[in-house]
Amino acid sequence: MIGQIGFLGGTGIEGKGLALRFALAGVRVIVGSRSAERAQSAAQKYNNEIGNVLIRGMTNSEMLASSEIVFLTVPFDHAKPALEGLRADFPANLVLVDVTVPMQFKAGQVEYLEPSEGSNAELIASLVPESVQVVAAFKTIPAHILAETDVPLQCDVLVCSDSQDARKKVMAAAGLIPTLRPLDAGPLKTARTLERMTVLAIHLNRHYKKKGARYRIEGL
Amino acid sequence: MIGQIGFLGGTGIEGKGLALRFALAGVRVIVGSRSAERAQSAAQKYNNEIGNVLIRGMTNSEMLASSEIVFLTVPFDHAKPALEGLRADFPANLVLVDVTVPMQFKAGQVEYLEPSEGSNAELIASLVPESVQVVAAFKTIPAHILAETDVPLQCDVLVCSDSQDARKKVMAAAGLIPTLRPLDAGPLKTARTLERMTVLAIHLNRHYKKKGARYRIEGL
Repeated sequence: MIGQIGFLGGTGIEGKGLALRFALAGVRVIVGSRSAERAQSAAQKYNNEIGNVLIRGMTNSEMLASSEIVFLTVPFDHAKPALEGLRADFPANLVLVDVTVPMQFKAGQVEYLEPSEGSNAELIASLVPESVQVVAAFKTIPAHILAETDVPLQCDVLVCSDSQDARKKVMAAAGLIPTLRPLDAGPLKTARTLERMTVLAIHLNRHYKKKGARYRIEGL
Repeated sequence: MIGQIGFLGGTGIEGKGLALRFALAGVRVIVGSRSAERAQSAAQKYNNEIGNVLIRGMTNSEMLASSEIVFLTVPFDHAKPALEGLRADFPANLVLVDVTVPMQFKAGQVEYLEPSEGSNAELIASLVPESVQVVAAFKTIPAHILAETDVPLQCDVLVCSDSQDARKKVMAAAGLIPTLRPLDAGPLKTARTLERMTVLAIHLNRHYKKKGARYRIEGL
Protein backbone atom coordinates (compact mmCIF):
# COMPACT_ATOMS: atom_id res chain seq x y z
CA MET A 1 0.00 0.00 0.00
CA ILE A 2 1.58 3.25 -1.20
CA GLY A 3 0.87 6.42 0.81
CA GLN A 4 0.45 9.82 -0.80
CA ILE A 5 2.93 10.87 -3.46
CA GLY A 6 3.94 14.52 -3.55
CA PHE A 7 5.55 16.65 -6.20
CA LEU A 8 7.96 19.41 -5.31
CA GLY A 9 7.43 21.74 -8.22
CA GLY A 10 4.51 19.77 -9.60
CA THR A 11 3.23 22.36 -12.03
CA GLY A 12 5.86 21.74 -14.72
CA ILE A 13 5.79 19.15 -17.49
CA GLU A 14 7.77 16.45 -15.64
CA GLY A 15 5.65 16.72 -12.49
CA LYS A 16 2.47 16.75 -14.52
CA GLY A 17 3.18 13.50 -16.37
CA LEU A 18 4.13 11.58 -13.24
CA ALA A 19 1.20 13.01 -11.26
CA LEU A 20 -1.24 11.92 -13.98
CA ARG A 21 0.30 8.45 -14.31
CA PHE A 22 0.22 7.83 -10.54
CA ALA A 23 -3.33 9.15 -10.14
CA LEU A 24 -4.47 6.95 -13.02
CA ALA A 25 -2.89 4.03 -11.14
CA GLY A 26 -5.07 4.85 -8.12
CA VAL A 27 -2.48 6.64 -5.99
CA ARG A 28 -3.40 9.82 -4.07
CA VAL A 29 -1.22 12.62 -5.40
CA ILE A 30 -0.29 16.04 -4.05
CA VAL A 31 0.94 18.73 -6.40
CA GLY A 32 3.19 21.16 -4.54
CA SER A 33 4.13 24.66 -5.57
CA ARG A 34 5.43 27.80 -3.89
CA SER A 35 1.92 29.19 -4.40
CA ALA A 36 -1.04 27.22 -2.99
CA GLU A 37 -3.28 28.76 -5.62
CA ARG A 38 -1.09 27.70 -8.49
CA ALA A 39 -0.86 24.18 -7.03
CA GLN A 40 -4.63 23.92 -6.61
CA SER A 41 -5.28 25.21 -10.09
CA ALA A 42 -2.81 22.71 -11.59
CA ALA A 43 -4.35 19.86 -9.54
CA GLN A 44 -7.82 20.80 -10.77
CA LYS A 45 -6.62 20.88 -14.37
CA TYR A 46 -4.90 17.50 -14.01
CA ASN A 47 -7.99 15.91 -12.45
CA ASN A 48 -10.15 17.25 -15.27
CA GLU A 49 -7.75 15.94 -17.87
CA ILE A 50 -8.01 12.35 -16.66
CA GLY A 51 -11.51 12.37 -15.11
CA ASN A 52 -10.04 11.78 -11.67
CA VAL A 53 -10.28 13.28 -8.17
CA LEU A 54 -7.10 11.87 -6.63
CA ILE A 55 -4.90 14.92 -7.22
CA ARG A 56 -4.81 17.81 -4.75
CA GLY A 57 -2.71 20.98 -4.69
CA MET A 58 -1.00 22.71 -1.76
CA THR A 59 2.18 24.62 -0.89
CA ASN A 60 5.44 22.70 -1.04
CA SER A 61 5.72 22.87 2.79
CA GLU A 62 2.26 21.36 3.29
CA MET A 63 2.90 18.76 0.60
CA LEU A 64 6.14 17.68 2.31
CA ALA A 65 4.27 17.14 5.60
CA SER A 66 1.65 14.91 3.95
CA SER A 67 3.64 12.74 1.52
CA GLU A 68 5.36 9.40 1.87
CA ILE A 69 7.33 9.80 -1.33
CA VAL A 70 8.17 13.18 -2.85
CA PHE A 71 9.33 13.66 -6.43
CA LEU A 72 11.62 16.59 -7.11
CA THR A 73 10.33 17.82 -10.47
CA VAL A 74 11.77 21.31 -10.80
CA PRO A 75 14.18 22.19 -13.64
CA PHE A 76 17.66 20.93 -12.65
CA ASP A 77 19.06 24.41 -12.05
CA HIS A 78 16.17 25.30 -9.71
CA ALA A 79 16.73 22.26 -7.48
CA LYS A 80 19.33 23.84 -5.23
CA PRO A 81 17.40 27.04 -4.31
CA ALA A 82 14.14 25.07 -4.02
CA LEU A 83 15.62 22.58 -1.58
CA GLU A 84 17.56 25.13 0.45
CA GLY A 85 14.39 27.11 1.10
CA LEU A 86 12.59 24.00 2.37
CA ARG A 87 15.31 22.36 4.49
CA ALA A 88 13.37 22.88 7.73
CA ASP A 89 10.20 21.35 6.25
CA PHE A 90 11.56 17.89 5.44
CA PRO A 91 9.99 15.24 7.66
CA ALA A 92 12.41 12.61 9.00
CA ASN A 93 12.98 9.65 6.67
CA LEU A 94 11.22 11.26 3.72
CA VAL A 95 11.88 9.46 0.44
CA LEU A 96 12.90 12.13 -2.09
CA VAL A 97 13.03 11.06 -5.74
CA ASP A 98 15.26 13.11 -8.00
CA VAL A 99 14.33 13.04 -11.69
CA THR A 100 16.50 15.97 -12.81
CA VAL A 101 19.33 15.89 -15.35
CA PRO A 102 21.82 18.74 -15.70
CA MET A 103 22.44 19.48 -19.39
CA GLN A 104 22.82 22.26 -21.88
CA PHE A 105 22.38 22.72 -25.60
CA LYS A 106 25.43 24.06 -27.35
CA ALA A 107 26.10 24.39 -31.08
CA GLY A 108 23.18 22.10 -31.88
CA GLN A 109 24.42 19.37 -29.52
CA VAL A 110 23.12 18.36 -26.11
CA GLU A 111 25.81 18.12 -23.42
CA TYR A 112 25.85 16.66 -19.94
CA LEU A 113 26.85 19.17 -17.23
CA GLU A 114 28.70 16.91 -14.82
CA PRO A 115 28.30 18.17 -11.23
CA SER A 116 31.41 18.03 -9.04
CA GLU A 117 29.50 15.64 -6.74
CA GLY A 118 29.40 13.14 -9.65
CA SER A 119 25.69 13.46 -10.51
CA ASN A 120 22.77 15.75 -9.80
CA ALA A 121 21.27 13.10 -7.52
CA GLU A 122 24.43 13.14 -5.39
CA LEU A 123 24.44 16.94 -5.39
CA ILE A 124 20.85 16.89 -4.13
CA ALA A 125 21.69 14.32 -1.46
CA SER A 126 24.33 16.77 -0.20
CA LEU A 127 21.71 19.54 0.14
CA VAL A 128 19.00 17.78 2.19
CA PRO A 129 19.02 16.70 5.85
CA GLU A 130 20.79 13.37 6.39
CA SER A 131 17.60 11.50 7.32
CA VAL A 132 16.09 12.20 3.88
CA GLN A 133 16.54 9.16 1.65
CA VAL A 134 17.40 10.27 -1.87
CA VAL A 135 16.47 8.06 -4.80
CA ALA A 136 17.23 8.67 -8.49
CA ALA A 137 14.57 7.38 -10.88
CA PHE A 138 12.54 8.28 -13.97
CA LYS A 139 15.49 10.33 -15.23
CA THR A 140 15.63 8.43 -18.50
CA ILE A 141 11.91 8.64 -19.36
CA PRO A 142 10.92 11.70 -21.44
CA ALA A 143 8.62 14.07 -19.52
CA HIS A 144 6.27 14.62 -22.42
CA ILE A 145 5.84 10.86 -22.94
CA LEU A 146 4.87 10.59 -19.27
CA ALA A 147 2.36 13.40 -19.83
CA GLU A 148 0.78 11.69 -22.87
CA THR A 149 -1.13 9.28 -20.69
CA ASP A 150 -2.64 7.39 -23.63
CA VAL A 151 0.85 6.30 -24.77
CA PRO A 152 1.90 3.01 -23.14
CA LEU A 153 5.35 3.58 -21.63
CA GLN A 154 6.69 0.11 -22.57
CA CYS A 155 10.05 0.76 -21.01
CA ASP A 156 12.07 0.25 -17.85
CA VAL A 157 12.51 2.68 -14.99
CA LEU A 158 15.97 2.39 -13.42
CA VAL A 159 15.87 3.09 -9.69
CA CYS A 160 18.97 3.72 -7.57
CA SER A 161 19.58 4.78 -3.97
CA ASP A 162 21.95 4.15 -1.10
CA SER A 163 18.90 3.16 0.95
CA GLN A 164 17.57 -0.25 -0.02
CA ASP A 165 14.23 0.49 1.70
CA ALA A 166 13.76 3.70 -0.25
CA ARG A 167 14.72 1.98 -3.50
CA LYS A 168 12.14 -0.74 -2.89
CA LYS A 169 9.45 1.78 -1.96
CA VAL A 170 9.96 3.75 -5.18
CA MET A 171 10.12 0.56 -7.25
CA ALA A 172 6.82 -0.58 -5.72
CA ALA A 173 5.22 2.77 -6.57
CA ALA A 174 6.63 2.77 -10.12
CA GLY A 175 5.39 -0.79 -10.60
CA LEU A 176 1.79 0.47 -10.27
CA ILE A 177 2.13 2.28 -13.61
CA PRO A 178 1.13 -0.07 -16.46
CA THR A 179 3.80 -1.31 -18.95
CA LEU A 180 6.56 0.25 -16.84
CA ARG A 181 9.07 -2.19 -15.33
CA PRO A 182 11.07 -1.01 -12.30
CA LEU A 183 14.67 -2.25 -12.15
CA ASP A 184 17.02 -2.09 -9.18
CA ALA A 185 20.00 -0.09 -10.42
CA GLY A 186 21.99 -0.22 -7.17
CA PRO A 187 23.58 2.66 -5.22
CA LEU A 188 22.86 6.36 -5.75
CA LYS A 189 26.03 6.92 -7.72
CA THR A 190 24.45 4.94 -10.60
CA ALA A 191 22.75 8.28 -11.26
CA ARG A 192 26.02 9.20 -13.02
CA THR A 193 25.05 6.61 -15.62
CA LEU A 194 21.32 7.40 -15.70
CA GLU A 195 21.83 11.14 -16.19
CA ARG A 196 24.20 10.51 -19.10
CA MET A 197 21.72 7.99 -20.58
CA THR A 198 19.12 10.77 -20.62
CA VAL A 199 21.45 13.04 -22.55
CA LEU A 200 22.12 10.20 -25.00
CA ALA A 201 18.36 9.62 -25.45
CA ILE A 202 17.91 13.32 -26.23
CA HIS A 203 20.75 13.15 -28.74
CA LEU A 204 19.04 10.14 -30.38
CA ASN A 205 15.69 11.97 -30.46
CA ARG A 206 17.27 14.92 -32.20
CA HIS A 207 19.31 12.80 -34.60
CA TYR A 208 16.38 10.60 -35.64
CA LYS A 209 13.77 13.39 -35.39
CA LYS A 210 11.75 11.58 -32.72
CA LYS A 211 10.62 12.55 -29.24
CA GLY A 212 10.12 9.47 -27.15
CA ALA A 213 13.47 7.60 -26.97
CA ARG A 214 13.57 5.58 -23.77
CA TYR A 215 15.29 2.44 -22.54
CA ARG A 216 14.25 -1.15 -22.23
CA ILE A 217 16.68 -3.82 -21.07
CA GLU A 218 16.54 -7.08 -22.98
CA GLY A 219 17.59 -10.36 -21.40
CA LEU A 220 16.33 -9.72 -17.86
CA MET B 1 30.16 -3.51 -49.58
CA ILE B 2 32.16 -4.08 -46.42
CA GLY B 3 35.83 -5.02 -46.77
CA GLN B 4 37.58 -7.43 -44.45
CA ILE B 5 37.00 -7.04 -40.72
CA GLY B 6 39.96 -7.73 -38.45
CA PHE B 7 40.22 -8.46 -34.76
CA LEU B 8 43.13 -7.22 -32.72
CA GLY B 9 43.25 -9.87 -30.02
CA GLY B 10 40.66 -12.05 -31.69
CA THR B 11 41.19 -15.19 -29.66
CA GLY B 12 39.29 -14.01 -26.57
CA ILE B 13 35.55 -14.28 -25.92
CA GLU B 14 34.62 -10.79 -27.20
CA GLY B 15 36.57 -11.20 -30.42
CA LYS B 16 35.16 -14.67 -30.93
CA GLY B 17 31.52 -13.62 -30.71
CA LEU B 18 31.90 -10.71 -33.10
CA ALA B 19 34.02 -12.75 -35.54
CA LEU B 20 31.36 -15.48 -35.64
CA ARG B 21 28.48 -13.02 -36.04
CA PHE B 22 30.20 -11.16 -38.90
CA ALA B 23 31.25 -14.36 -40.69
CA LEU B 24 27.70 -15.68 -40.41
CA ALA B 25 26.57 -12.40 -42.03
CA GLY B 26 28.88 -13.15 -44.98
CA VAL B 27 31.75 -10.83 -44.10
CA ARG B 28 35.37 -11.98 -44.54
CA VAL B 29 36.98 -11.94 -41.11
CA ILE B 30 40.61 -11.95 -39.93
CA VAL B 31 41.46 -13.07 -36.44
CA GLY B 32 44.66 -11.40 -35.29
CA SER B 33 46.94 -12.50 -32.48
CA ARG B 34 50.55 -11.95 -31.47
CA SER B 35 51.11 -15.56 -32.59
CA ALA B 36 50.14 -16.54 -36.17
CA GLU B 37 49.67 -20.13 -35.04
CA ARG B 38 47.29 -19.20 -32.26
CA ALA B 39 45.34 -16.99 -34.67
CA GLN B 40 45.10 -19.72 -37.32
CA SER B 41 44.05 -22.30 -34.77
CA ALA B 42 41.33 -19.98 -33.40
CA ALA B 43 40.13 -19.18 -36.95
CA GLN B 44 39.94 -22.90 -37.77
CA LYS B 45 37.94 -23.56 -34.59
CA TYR B 46 35.56 -20.67 -35.31
CA ASN B 47 34.99 -21.82 -38.91
CA ASN B 48 34.23 -25.35 -37.69
CA GLU B 49 31.81 -24.04 -35.10
CA ILE B 50 29.63 -22.29 -37.67
CA GLY B 51 30.34 -24.41 -40.76
CA ASN B 52 31.99 -21.48 -42.49
CA VAL B 53 35.24 -20.71 -44.31
CA LEU B 54 35.25 -16.92 -44.10
CA ILE B 55 37.51 -16.63 -41.04
CA ARG B 56 41.30 -16.59 -41.38
CA GLY B 57 44.03 -16.16 -38.77
CA MET B 58 47.27 -14.17 -38.96
CA THR B 59 49.53 -11.98 -36.82
CA ASN B 60 48.14 -8.65 -35.64
CA SER B 61 50.55 -6.80 -37.96
CA GLU B 62 49.40 -8.75 -41.03
CA MET B 63 45.76 -8.40 -39.97
CA LEU B 64 46.13 -4.61 -39.69
CA ALA B 65 47.52 -4.43 -43.25
CA SER B 66 44.56 -6.38 -44.69
CA SER B 67 41.52 -5.00 -42.83
CA GLU B 68 39.16 -2.13 -43.54
CA ILE B 69 37.72 -2.13 -40.02
CA VAL B 70 39.60 -3.48 -37.00
CA PHE B 71 37.95 -4.35 -33.70
CA LEU B 72 40.06 -3.97 -30.58
CA THR B 73 38.97 -6.98 -28.54
CA VAL B 74 41.68 -7.37 -25.91
CA PRO B 75 40.87 -7.05 -22.19
CA PHE B 76 40.68 -3.32 -21.37
CA ASP B 77 43.94 -3.31 -19.39
CA HIS B 78 45.84 -4.93 -22.29
CA ALA B 79 44.75 -2.29 -24.79
CA LYS B 80 47.53 0.18 -24.07
CA PRO B 81 50.51 -2.23 -24.43
CA ALA B 82 48.88 -3.96 -27.42
CA LEU B 83 48.43 -0.66 -29.28
CA GLU B 84 51.83 0.78 -28.38
CA GLY B 85 53.58 -2.27 -29.82
CA LEU B 86 51.69 -1.91 -33.11
CA ARG B 87 51.82 1.87 -33.67
CA ALA B 88 54.01 1.53 -36.74
CA ASP B 89 51.69 -1.06 -38.31
CA PHE B 90 48.53 1.06 -38.48
CA PRO B 91 47.61 1.83 -42.09
CA ALA B 92 46.46 5.40 -42.71
CA ASN B 93 42.74 6.02 -42.13
CA LEU B 94 42.16 2.66 -40.47
CA VAL B 95 38.81 2.45 -38.66
CA LEU B 96 39.52 1.08 -35.17
CA VAL B 97 36.52 -0.02 -33.12
CA ASP B 98 36.99 -0.05 -29.36
CA VAL B 99 34.67 -2.41 -27.48
CA THR B 100 36.51 -2.36 -24.13
CA VAL B 101 35.14 -1.18 -20.79
CA PRO B 102 37.39 -0.48 -17.79
CA MET B 103 35.85 -1.92 -14.63
CA GLN B 104 36.64 -3.83 -11.50
CA PHE B 105 34.77 -6.03 -9.05
CA LYS B 106 35.03 -4.88 -5.47
CA ALA B 107 33.14 -6.15 -2.42
CA GLY B 108 30.62 -7.92 -4.64
CA GLN B 109 29.91 -4.80 -6.71
CA VAL B 110 31.02 -3.90 -10.21
CA GLU B 111 32.60 -0.46 -10.53
CA TYR B 112 33.51 1.71 -13.49
CA LEU B 113 37.16 2.71 -13.60
CA GLU B 114 36.94 6.17 -15.12
CA PRO B 115 40.03 6.95 -17.24
CA SER B 116 41.44 10.46 -16.91
CA GLU B 117 40.74 10.91 -20.66
CA GLY B 118 37.00 10.53 -19.85
CA SER B 119 36.50 7.06 -21.34
CA ASN B 120 38.57 4.12 -22.53
CA ALA B 121 37.67 4.99 -26.12
CA GLU B 122 39.19 8.46 -25.68
CA LEU B 123 42.25 6.94 -23.98
CA ILE B 124 42.68 4.65 -26.98
CA ALA B 125 42.27 7.55 -29.41
CA SER B 126 45.17 9.24 -27.61
CA LEU B 127 47.41 6.19 -28.17
CA VAL B 128 47.03 5.62 -31.93
CA PRO B 129 48.33 7.69 -34.87
CA GLU B 130 46.10 10.66 -35.66
CA SER B 131 44.92 9.28 -38.99
CA VAL B 132 43.34 6.26 -37.26
CA GLN B 133 39.61 6.84 -36.84
CA VAL B 134 38.49 5.52 -33.47
CA VAL B 135 34.91 4.34 -33.04
CA ALA B 136 33.27 3.07 -29.83
CA ALA B 137 30.63 0.38 -30.38
CA PHE B 138 29.39 -2.98 -29.10
CA LYS B 139 30.51 -1.98 -25.60
CA THR B 140 27.03 -2.57 -24.17
CA ILE B 141 26.44 -6.02 -25.69
CA PRO B 142 27.59 -8.95 -23.52
CA ALA B 143 30.48 -10.88 -25.12
CA HIS B 144 29.04 -14.29 -24.31
CA ILE B 145 25.69 -13.37 -25.90
CA LEU B 146 27.58 -12.40 -29.06
CA ALA B 147 29.32 -15.79 -28.92
CA GLU B 148 26.05 -17.73 -28.56
CA THR B 149 25.26 -17.35 -32.23
CA ASP B 150 21.90 -19.14 -31.98
CA VAL B 151 20.60 -16.40 -29.64
CA PRO B 152 19.00 -13.51 -31.59
CA LEU B 153 20.57 -10.30 -30.31
CA GLN B 154 17.32 -8.27 -30.42
CA CYS B 155 19.01 -5.13 -29.18
CA ASP B 156 20.60 -1.89 -30.34
CA VAL B 157 24.28 -1.21 -30.93
CA LEU B 158 25.21 2.36 -30.06
CA VAL B 159 27.99 3.67 -32.30
CA CYS B 160 29.95 6.84 -31.63
CA SER B 161 32.98 8.52 -33.20
CA ASP B 162 34.33 11.95 -33.99
CA SER B 163 34.54 10.80 -37.62
CA GLN B 164 31.14 10.66 -39.28
CA ASP B 165 32.51 8.46 -42.08
CA ALA B 166 33.91 5.93 -39.63
CA ARG B 167 30.68 5.94 -37.65
CA LYS B 168 28.67 5.23 -40.80
CA LYS B 169 31.05 2.48 -41.89
CA VAL B 170 30.77 0.66 -38.56
CA MET B 171 26.98 1.14 -38.50
CA ALA B 172 26.75 -0.37 -41.98
CA ALA B 173 28.83 -3.37 -40.86
CA ALA B 174 26.82 -3.82 -37.65
CA GLY B 175 23.60 -3.62 -39.64
CA LEU B 176 24.56 -6.85 -41.42
CA ILE B 177 24.05 -8.79 -38.18
CA PRO B 178 20.41 -9.93 -37.90
CA THR B 179 18.14 -8.42 -35.20
CA LEU B 180 20.80 -5.85 -34.29
CA ARG B 181 19.92 -2.20 -34.91
CA PRO B 182 22.81 0.27 -35.23
CA LEU B 183 22.15 3.72 -33.75
CA ASP B 184 24.20 6.87 -34.27
CA ALA B 185 25.28 7.90 -30.77
CA GLY B 186 27.25 10.99 -31.83
CA PRO B 187 30.82 12.00 -30.93
CA LEU B 188 33.43 9.72 -29.36
CA LYS B 189 32.92 11.16 -25.90
CA THR B 190 29.52 9.41 -25.80
CA ALA B 191 31.70 6.42 -24.86
CA ARG B 192 31.61 7.90 -21.33
CA THR B 193 27.93 6.99 -21.32
CA LEU B 194 28.26 3.65 -23.12
CA GLU B 195 31.00 2.36 -20.83
CA ARG B 196 28.93 3.21 -17.75
CA MET B 197 25.87 1.57 -19.35
CA THR B 198 27.89 -1.65 -19.64
CA VAL B 199 28.73 -1.55 -15.94
CA LEU B 200 25.04 -0.96 -15.17
CA ALA B 201 24.06 -3.94 -17.35
CA ILE B 202 26.53 -6.13 -15.44
CA HIS B 203 25.10 -4.90 -12.15
CA LEU B 204 21.59 -5.80 -13.41
CA ASN B 205 22.78 -9.25 -14.52
CA ARG B 206 24.22 -9.94 -11.10
CA HIS B 207 21.24 -8.52 -9.22
CA TYR B 208 18.65 -10.45 -11.24
CA LYS B 209 20.85 -13.54 -11.71
CA LYS B 210 20.85 -13.26 -15.50
CA LYS B 211 23.61 -13.01 -18.07
CA GLY B 212 22.34 -11.25 -21.16
CA ALA B 213 21.19 -7.75 -20.11
CA ARG B 214 21.48 -5.45 -23.12
CA TYR B 215 19.81 -2.27 -24.32
CA ARG B 216 17.04 -1.52 -26.74
CA ILE B 217 15.76 1.99 -27.27
CA GLU B 218 11.99 2.32 -27.52
CA GLY B 219 10.36 5.19 -29.39
CA LEU B 220 12.88 5.50 -32.24
